[in-house]
This record gives sequence, structure tokens and C-alpha cells, in this order.
Amino acid sequence: MKYRAEITTQLKEGMLDPEGDTIQRALMHLGYDVSGVHTAKKLLIELEADSADDATKMLDEMCQKLLANPVIHNYSIKIQ
Amino acid sequence: MKYRAEITTQLKEGMLDPEGDTIQRALMHLGYDVSGVHTAKKLLIELEADSADDATKMLDEMCQKLLANPVIHNYSIKIQ
Repeated sequence: MKYRAEITTQLKEGMLDPEGDTIQRALMHLGYDVSGVHTAKKLLIELEADSADDATKMLDEMCQKLLANPVIHNYSIKIQ
Repeated sequence: MKYRAEITTQLKEGMLDPEGDTIQRALMHLGYDVSGVHTAKKLLIELEADSADDATKMLDEMCQKLLANPVIHNYSIKIQ
């Protein structure tokens, strides 16, 4: 069966986020009162699996192997 | 008042997504039956605004001016 999933990877609390900092500075230069910007990446994945549990297991493996760096990223998996 | 918002920018339907294609190929090489990968960017923004409506208006301006390219991106704004 075909499943659609959403994976979000985000830097762990306390990790430097230079891209977010740059965006924050740019927004402040434009006159917006922004006190913090954090970046995250979202991947929308279509995959074939026997069950939703099976899909979640595979997606977790994908994150561990390829999509996230468990040392610096938190990730979440949402089956749609 | 302080608001937290989530902005998601994604390539419009039909736009080439080479990053997504590369991830899909890499996952297929690892043996996963993946039929599509689309990438999106999420920004978590903390900002000062008078009301939720005001915050949404400002965030929409930010997207138009800086955060998204309206020619190639769709974006969505969610106040938390």
C-alpha cells in the first residue's frame, strides 16, 4: 500500500543555526521586531509499505541512515 | 505581545526539485521502495505584534519580501 509521510529534521536545542540567525538579522534590517528564527527541513515522501507501522519503521531507518544526523538533529515522522 | 509562527515554503507544483530527486535515488539505492520525495523549508519565527492578525500580515509581508520567491514557491503561515 502507498503511504505519504512528512519528515521534519531540526537542529537540536543549543546547536548554532547560522542560517536562522542571518534571516533574523535580515528581517530586523527590514524593520520587523523578530526575536528568533529557527530553520528546519521538511521532506514529503511517498513510499510503498505493508502497513502504517511498517512505513514508520522504514522511515525511522531512513532518518538514521541518510536523512538526519542524529548527533545534531531531532527528527519527527508523520504518516498522512 | 509575542507570537510564534511557522512558515513553510515549498516549490510550486511542476517545478523541478533536484534535491528531492537526489534523496529519492539515494533511498532507492538503499533498497527502499520510494516513489517520490519533495523538499520544503520550515522557519520557526518569534515576533512581536499587537494581535494575531497583525502578526499574520507582517509574516505575509516577510514572505513576499524575503523568505519566499513567489514566482517558484508556495508558502503557508501558521500562528502557534
